[in-house]
Amino acid sequence: MQEFTVKFTPQNKLVRVPKGTDLLSAAIKAGIVLAASCGGVGLCGKCRIVVEKGTFKSEASPLVGEEDRKNGIVLACETIVEGDLEVRIPKESLGLHEKISGATEEFTKGVVLEKEKSIKYLPLVRKIYVELTAPTADNSTSDLERIYDALAEKIDHVHISTKVASLKHLDELLRDSDYKVTAVIAYNDDSVEILTIEPGDTSKANFGFAFDIGTTTVAGQLIDLNTKNILGTRIAFNKQASYGSDVITRIIYASEPEGLKKLNEAVMENINDIIGDLTDACKINLSDVYGLVMAGNMTMMHLLLKIDPSNIRKSPYVPTSVVFQNINAAELGVETNPKGTVAFAPGVTTYIGGDIVSGVLACGLAESDEMSLLADIGTNGEIVLGTKDWMIGAAASAGPAFEGSGLSHGMKAVRGAIEKVRISKSLDVEIGTIGNDAPKGICGSGYIDLLCQMLKAGVIGKDGRINRDIKSKRVRKSDVNYEFVVSFKSESAIGRDIVIQEDDIENLKRSKAAIYSAIIALLNKVEKNINEVNKIYIAGGFGNYLNIENSIFIGLLPDLKRDVYEFIGNSSLAGARMSLISHEAFEKMSTIYKNITYMDLSSEPNYMDEYVAALFFPHTDLGRFPSARS
Amino acid sequence: MQEFTVKFTPQNKLVRVPKGTDLLSAAIKAGIVLAASCGGVGLCGKCRIVVEKGTFKSEASPLVGEEDRKNGIVLACETIVEGDLEVRIPKESLGLHEKISGATEEFTKGVVLEKEKSIKYLPLVRKIYVELTAPTADNSTSDLERIYDALAEKIDHVHISTKVASLKHLDELLRDSDYKVTAVIAYNDDSVEILTIEPGDTSKANFGFAFDIGTTTVAGQLIDLNTKNILGTRIAFNKQASYGSDVITRIIYASEPEGLKKLNEAVMENINDIIGDLTDACKINLSDVYGLVMAGNMTMMHLLLKIDPSNIRKSPYVPTSVVFQNINAAELGVETNPKGTVAFAPGVTTYIGGDIVSGVLACGLAESDEMSLLADIGTNGEIVLGTKDWMIGAAASAGPAFEGSGLSHGMKAVRGAIEKVRISKSLDVEIGTIGNDAPKGICGSGYIDLLCQMLKAGVIGKDGRINRDIKSKRVRKSDVNYEFVVSFKSESAIGRDIVIQEDDIENLKRSKAAIYSAIIALLNKVEKNINEVNKIYIAGGFGNYLNIENSIFIGLLPDLKRDVYEFIGNSSLAGARMSLISHEAFEKMSTIYKNITYMDLSSEPNYMDEYVAALFFPHTDLGRFPSARS
Repeated sequence: MQEFTVKFTPQNKLVRVPKGTDLLSAAIKAGIVLAASCGGVGLCGKCRIVVEKGTFKSEASPLVGEEDRKNGIVLACETIVEGDLEVRIPKESLGLHEKISGATEEFTKGVVLEKEKSIKYLPLVRKIYVELTAPTADNSTSDLERIYDALAEKIDHVHISTKVASLKHLDELLRDSDYKVTAVIAYNDDSVEILTIEPGDTSKANFGFAFDIGTTTVAGQLIDLNTKNILGTRIAFNKQASYGSDVITRIIYASEPEGLKKLNEAVMENINDIIGDLTDACKINLSDVYGLVMAGNMTMMHLLLKIDPSNIRKSPYVPTSVVFQNINAAELGVETNPKGTVAFAPGVTTYIGGDIVSGVLACGLAESDEMSLLADIGTNGEIVLGTKDWMIGAAASAGPAFEGSGLSHGMKAVRGAIEKVRISKSLDVEIGTIGNDAPKGICGSGYIDLLCQMLKAGVIGKDGRINRDIKSKRVRKSDVNYEFVVSFKSESAIGRDIVIQEDDIENLKRSKAAIYSAIIALLNKVEKNINEVNKIYIAGGFGNYLNIENSIFIGLLPDLKRDVYEFIGNSSLAGARMSLISHEAFEKMSTIYKNITYMDLSSEPNYMDEYVAALFFPHTDLGRFPSARS
Repeated sequence: MQEFTVKFTPQNKLVRVPKGTDLLSAAIKAGIVLAASCGGVGLCGKCRIVVEKGTFKSEASPLVGEEDRKNGIVLACETIVEGDLEVRIPKESLGLHEKISGATEEFTKGVVLEKEKSIKYLPLVRKIYVELTAPTADNSTSDLERIYDALAEKIDHVHISTKVASLKHLDELLRDSDYKVTAVIAYNDDSVEILTIEPGDTSKANFGFAFDIGTTTVAGQLIDLNTKNILGTRIAFNKQASYGSDVITRIIYASEPEGLKKLNEAVMENINDIIGDLTDACKINLSDVYGLVMAGNMTMMHLLLKIDPSNIRKSPYVPTSVVFQNINAAELGVETNPKGTVAFAPGVTTYIGGDIVSGVLACGLAESDEMSLLADIGTNGEIVLGTKDWMIGAAASAGPAFEGSGLSHGMKAVRGAIEKVRISKSLDVEIGTIGNDAPKGICGSGYIDLLCQMLKAGVIGKDGRINRDIKSKRVRKSDVNYEFVVSFKSESAIGRDIVIQEDDIENLKRSKAAIYSAIIALLNKVEKNINEVNKIYIAGGFGNYLNIENSIFIGLLPDLKRDVYEFIGNSSLAGARMSLISHEAFEKMSTIYKNITYMDLSSEPNYMDEYVAALFFPHTDLGRFPSARS
């Protein structure tokens, strides 16, 4: 078969591929992960590239505007190699996969909740230094019993176990270290396992990682298990995105040959990058990392554990399992100490995963006498309502709009994202970006502000339609759509205008309607009134900023007293961190997941009515939004 | 390097080896395991061979008699290849390693104790067929929970777990089998683990293996876990014998490069041969074998589990561990279903291993109100004395004489072994052999009879010395030793006279003295009299036959009423079998091993006196042996 060389710039990576290979595949082969939320089937228009030299064949995509086309922009997935090529990759095509820089760490840290400060300190992994008495003729108990006896004085636990593999050279180790050793122990259910024995006193160096494995982003935190301190946080875009931005596309891809393997490798790369990066930055030895807790939605957990996820997308949408036993770090493939242990937050169903259970743990909903509600607005919108005695949960098909996905200039809450917007009466637009960088796109909080401000300025009506009568260079008709320019090319970092189109507004409207109506449907189900809710926790990837006032104004959240709301950031990550620091907290999740009753919104008769009624800004029933009336 | 071809007959195996290779190593390379109890250092004189053609260099061993030397017999370990060779291996040099034929199975089966019939049936591995309801929108619990729910109705257990690896394709399996599946579950501590899920109803085929891993022999039994039936038994000589007959030699060998690996491979070959052989014979699919229980002494367990055993032989003789967690069949390397589980009988100390704990379980000593005693006469002699409330155990340095090891014509209780002897006044010898074959050697029971009869016929005195005054062709002086011919060359199967030498008698006398005095020392320790012992269980590799009368006559066993004694055969194997059939029995071993107090005979002041006093037939104090006085 004829082969050609493709050179990618600015990475300067070369790759040999057979004639007929598409450039998206060629880029992946070169180790360059392009944005391709549709999974490379020409639907999302994100894998834009410029072929600068060489012979190729490309379809003219309707997703590439006329001007772009003139500048040589084509979609990598629809461009076929027919000779040696030189390909330039514009920054924004990579954007989704660039490592998010240190400056944005704070945004993903989430709120360290008051609760967390008071949890019982009992980390998943403990290092316990013991000085054993050397055996004598009168005291010739085995090496292992000697360690058990010493541990029994220091830990409060009945059953200790040790895998046979950990015993192989224990005798030598004890004698070489003069019987002064550190036992690395992990809690698991009601028992304690010795992961390994280290010579000397290594108890000072005991680190762990908490992870939130999201469909769009993977967030990880390095924790000092001795001090509970967060040493660093990293967030990265889930590399599985190259195989599709949503879970459905990925599940379909997983059933292709090697598909599951590739998806698994992609997210493992994320995880290991974060581990490597944070341990490097903190100058921590990987071998001192023994404990990890992972929280994520059901599809992410299946892909992470290489479990066939195909039934998750087939009616009646049943996962293989919602609970996963701890596994060995090496078995999972995480690059920590290979003898480390990885624990997983349990889930409820396909739609209420371990990320939500972890969030419920983090906000304390399951321990309160009073009714509260958690809304996790991420790639979907999951809602849990309840008290310590009962909980009910639902997933709204909100889509990932508030994560910035599926919108013409949507992006995650990272450096360069527009997160605050003010529009004056004369339609001057004042923006705030994360990191005060030149804007690259708009994140969820930015869209909430933007919608609110567009409504207030009359740019859009209550139906979300752009007012055609406005005379402004900011309001215009593009190829297919009316659009509002938020930031002109001259100010933007991407060499193009940053806009919001009518399709984007429609998309956001459906999202906010789905979330709002899910909240109401849950309350209806248990015959409670929204005013009876004591506390509403809002979680999600909004970064550090979510304007509750504006969220209510557009009808995303019910019009309640503002102090009912608490924005808690990435609660999945917070719960994973708490579970890592406290085995007691981890065990609490076992109670939580069993106590949450899942409610299928699609089979709720009143949900559709609520949803349709919410397809206005803020709502068809303005009586529900007194604040927005003014 | 110059290489030569060595041909071994009658196996007709050829092997190429470098010049200077010794023939013991060449034989191992050709897959032929010769007897070599000293580990191939020219001390035991067992690896006798005849070089029939070719150039070699050999040392004249004092262990090869003149006549043998004339017939071309040399020791393989001391013979060096210097050209192409043809080597004949006499049968007895192989004897130790031949698979013991089906006809001898019965001998190793041991006694199926009354107790065993009444134990609670709860096998280590159960196969439970369940018909699950297919998931619907109203019932969308995960695949795994569906199985858990179905199992909860059939088993009585709180905590069920499943390794992540078992979930990978569970979804497909359930759907392809129309939700009719068999859960293969294993008991472990207080919980139950699902080893795997099989499609359809496979519950009828559920098999397991019980093993006794002895220093000299490895015995295995195939059990139908549904019916508790023993489907077959095999015994084989422990292939580790090529690296030394006793544990000390093997422990030393284990510290050489690759030594531990080779020792492990040798015993794994034993185990897998037995598994393969019995499943073949019973036409059972290896994949239907999921459960194994292993009992053995501490060194054997360390070697089996590839745990460095070196401290077992260094003062203060501390093993790495006495308890071993269940491990996966594939991890251990047993060739059953790779998802199977292997459990290990726990031990007490270096000297009281899992084989003894297993034996205590089997004989019921630990459940009796009345004081009883177990004496396991194998490669060493271990004694446990006690009631359900207390137990004390000791190991006598009896050596393997009663296993037929270390004696000029000793052999295990297998086909061709002389097991019964009668000597008339005119010194005619009447022998009984196992399988009624021509005699190959003498086993433990044979030696006991032989000593008793020689005493009665006046061939030996109470000091064990052969009476020089006897005029008989049976009594003669060999190169170094006086000896008594038990079976002449003309009757024997080995082409040589079968004799007992004075050194052998000395060896046996020390063994019997060690065992007898250990029994007395234990009783003294707890200030009990031998007459207070309600029951004495004799275990060991004596085959089906042990003459208690004769054992008392030579002073091996105390002179008590004969019905105090019960010969229970291989009690280690019996206990392993019981533990395989009943998890409750297995758990009982956890109590037993903790309740046995180990007594170090060498530090007991009165033990040495007792031992020395017992170095007569039957004893210096004839008052203790009224039966022997007549």
